[in-house]
Amino acid sequence: MSVAVISVVGAGMMGSALCVPLSDRGHDVRLIGTPLDGALVSAVASERPHPTLGVRLPAKLRCQPASELAEACADADAIVLGVSSAGIPWAASALAPVLARSPRPILMLSKGLEQGGPPDPGQPAAHRLRVLTEALRLALPDELAAQTRPVAVCGPCIAGELVRRTPTMVVFTGQDLSVARRFADWLETPYYRVVLQEDERGTQLCAALKNAYAMGIAFGAGLHQRVGGERGSVAMHNYEAAVFAQSLVEMQELVVSQGGSVATALGLAGSGDLTVTCNGGRTGRFGALLGMGHATREAIRLMQGATLECLEVLGVLDRFFQSSAEGLDRRRWPLLSHLIEVGLHGAPVDVPFQEFFRA
Amino acid sequence: MSVAVISVVGAGMMGSALCVPLSDRGHDVRLIGTPLDGALVSAVASERPHPTLGVRLPAKLRCQPASELAEACADADAIVLGVSSAGIPWAASALAPVLARSPRPILMLSKGLEQGGPPDPGQPAAHRLRVLTEALRLALPDELAAQTRPVAVCGPCIAGELVRRTPTMVVFTGQDLSVARRFADWLETPYYRVVLQEDERGTQLCAALKNAYAMGIAFGAGLHQRVGGERGSVAMHNYEAAVFAQSLVEMQELVVSQGGSVATALGLAGSGDLTVTCNGGRTGRFGALLGMGHATREAIRLMQGATLECLEVLGVLDRFFQSSAEGLDRRRWPLLSHLIEVGLHGAPVDVPFQEFFRA
Repeated sequence: MSVAVISVVGAGMMGSALCVPLSDRGHDVRLIGTPLDGALVSAVASERPHPTLGVRLPAKLRCQPASELAEACADADAIVLGVSSAGIPWAASALAPVLARSPRPILMLSKGLEQGGPPDPGQPAAHRLRVLTEALRLALPDELAAQTRPVAVCGPCIAGELVRRTPTMVVFTGQDLSVARRFADWLETPYYRVVLQEDERGTQLCAALKNAYAMGIAFGAGLHQRVGGERGSVAMHNYEAAVFAQSLVEMQELVVSQGGSVATALGLAGSGDLTVTCNGGRTGRFGALLGMGHATREAIRLMQGATLECLEVLGVLDRFFQSSAEGLDRRRWPLLSHLIEVGLHGAPVDVPFQEFFRA
Repeated sequence: MSVAVISVVGAGMMGSALCVPLSDRGHDVRLIGTPLDGALVSAVASERPHPTLGVRLPAKLRCQPASELAEACADADAIVLGVSSAGIPWAASALAPVLARSPRPILMLSKGLEQGGPPDPGQPAAHRLRVLTEALRLALPDELAAQTRPVAVCGPCIAGELVRRTPTMVVFTGQDLSVARRFADWLETPYYRVVLQEDERGTQLCAALKNAYAMGIAFGAGLHQRVGGERGSVAMHNYEAAVFAQSLVEMQELVVSQGGSVATALGLAGSGDLTVTCNGGRTGRFGALLGMGHATREAIRLMQGATLECLEVLGVLDRFFQSSAEGLDRRRWPLLSHLIEVGLHGAPVDVPFQEFFRA
């Protein structure tokens, strides 16, 4: 219930949207852009609508450029990291001096996945998919990593809805749930509810995997359009539903293979986030272009430079399966294998239904 | 691979749609109407489009009225039951003399749920939700029930898509999977794929429950419309996703409480069927009317007499919880409890998010 100073680093859609519940809870909120957020910062600082959200952020918010990060974080009680996964090394080096002065709880909004060993020597060697709380700790100097237990936000949250205060329910996860609990206490409002979840790795794996699988579910909309079909209750929904169910089954299997919990894929971070990702964002438009028969390169061109998280995640998974010396057989994930072939290697869409649900 | 004589009883959407893969596989198919199917039978028999599917059925199909059921089934190798759950007692008495002459494998397309003890004395007393394969056996004379092992079709299958040969993947389940395998061998085509699943009770429970839960997911669309929102990628999708995930968690819990498998809700019969049911059918329209703020009675009136399976299932579950002497606490299913209050007892829509994901 206490009021805190909270610095949000990264003025993209999700970092900016989170300023709404933070401000509504009465916190002293600073929104700090990354070096790439110049246009966003100047719009928000001059009280114009946020350029990608299309909404004016709370007036009492202080919005500052990256050059003022150290000053804006100096007296912060907590830090929210709203950078992309690619921005984590920059954020780690920018925040290192701040954290060195005094450790601060960190909440991560970033979504993604990296290939490489886990940071803790105690984890099994097969757990070679690295989630972003692990990536941040690896990017920090050793003495700071040892005392940092980042909390990740997962689950279904379209930023454009949160900023409009529509009901949203998310998952906070991390190595230390008492830190997650503090963030929940700072952030919860009647429209922004938080569930705490122990499965740090599985929860974040689902958050990354959903983009890859949502691309595949969207093939159905493209195939339907290709044959001249219109939007409606009779389309390719049976096809989409079979791909959706296989996606969840494969997510569960991958989560478990990486030391996560068997329950995670069914819940908010798995099925909830997958279903929201199928509701008309970039990934869905890209998957539909592929389903319509566009070659992968052409579909990427038609997306006009939009970030395609699905391809980034598929790239990590492709390298993971190729390098996996631990006996992880890609054939246990027939849909994911097909998505890798389509998204990265130019194969035509031809979903291998005959290999689904074989367990 | 063999060609068979197959009689489909019930000329509604699903029974009629199944005639398409049956005919494509070269079987001798007879479609027999129930006493309520007069208009459907005369349309199909005179080669006009099926009135509710809007598509002409295969020409070689024989379509016959209920009065010719005994004759049309006499030499059938197998029987497909495409009646509603309310039609099961009629079907059982009509088929009893046919089965008495020689037992025939039966495939059930009906979806629904009944309250009351299971047919086998060996099952635990708490398993008081009766699935439709059990209901059919109970409706047959004892000596026929003993030799009948009906197979149920579950999973995501919009009839209007199957009849257009769009890719569809379903689950066959039953006490005797060798019977399910025979039906799969008769029915599978490249566009109609079958997964065999052992969990007879859990699989059919999911098929019934999905209608109730899809009503709740559709509240979001109505709430969005109520505030003047238009269809798009920013709407109430976060809300819908949280309800969707909680639905799967509660389905799993109810399935397990009834002796089913913990894996069923995640797969095709659970998540697959739930997602397809959210794609614009009657249940979704009804749930959206409730979300818009219409009183339940008014919403039912606006549906102009359409069958609302969601209310039938909620009625069974309401009586089940009320009569459950076995310690099943309705509070373990907070969403379902709210759906019962809204759908049956006129409560306003106010989804209890604060009670979600507490396990």
